[in-house]
Amino acid sequence: MKKTLFATAQDAEAAFYEAFMKQDLDAMMSVWSDDDEVYCVHPRGARVSGVAQVRESWRQIFAAAQSVRFQVREHHLLQAMMVSVHSVYEHIAVGGESRTRACILATNIYMRTEQGWRMMVHHASPAPAVEEVEPRRTAKTLH
Amino acid sequence: MKKTLFATAQDAEAAFYEAFMKQDLDAMMSVWSDDDEVYCVHPRGARVSGVAQVRESWRQIFAAAQSVRFQVREHHLLQAMMVSVHSVYEHIAVGGESRTRACILATNIYMRTEQGWRMMVHHASPAPAVEEVEPRRTAKTLH
Repeated sequence: MKKTLFATAQDAEAAFYEAFMKQDLDAMMSVWSDDDEVYCVHPRGARVSGVAQVRESWRQIFAAAQSVRFQVREHHLLQAMMVSVHSVYEHIAVGGESRTRACILATNIYMRTEQGWRMMVHHASPAPAVEEVEPRRTAKTLH
Repeated sequence: MKKTLFATAQDAEAAFYEAFMKQDLDAMMSVWSDDDEVYCVHPRGARVSGVAQVRESWRQIFAAAQSVRFQVREHHLLQAMMVSVHSVYEHIAVGGESRTRACILATNIYMRTEQGWRMMVHHASPAPAVEEVEPRRTAKTLH
């Protein structure tokens, strides 16, 4: 399969979350580097390493998953010459629900390879419970 | 305070776990880069970023903690020119206990700075339950 060449780490990250939402295994793996050094930690899971194991872990997740939607928020970026580290909160909604079902904190590491920017590491773990921000209502109408 | 200069990411990592076990806040912060870009995720915690917040998070942990011992196992390393990414399992024992109380999976990211190798990221999260390996006993004595 011809892989997409991502010109920036941001492009690779956008493709990662798009593939995750579409549960598209080939698109997901086109984001990852073809490399035995890559690794992935799914929430509460053990580390899986090497591209074959990482692929298998996503296959299992996509086989089991309901449709999910992500809001990726509160980016924090660290950039070096060939490496880009992104910390993001993933607010995950399931099926047709609008509320956030789970909040995950992920460290995503991308490296610039000969095939463009590719994901090397995805470490995702449970974040503290989400406080749903309701529109603030005053107790009284003041006018 | 004069900071130690770490010649390799491994040296910085050794100092990180030594400072953690000794609950020595100054030694811990000598491992971190003096940088607003650094961030830290303690198990089940929110992301804290910037050296001041990271320092405060360790101060709170050390103030609350019993003495802890670490065995750091199953290193998985990813190295680029200026960046080194280490994934490790931290087997943590508390007080005088010999058994592992908690198993944590950490992604530690070091960068080569003008002040030597320094920690930029520590993302730690609960790993699957540890299976204590008991010496295997046969039900019958066979001879």
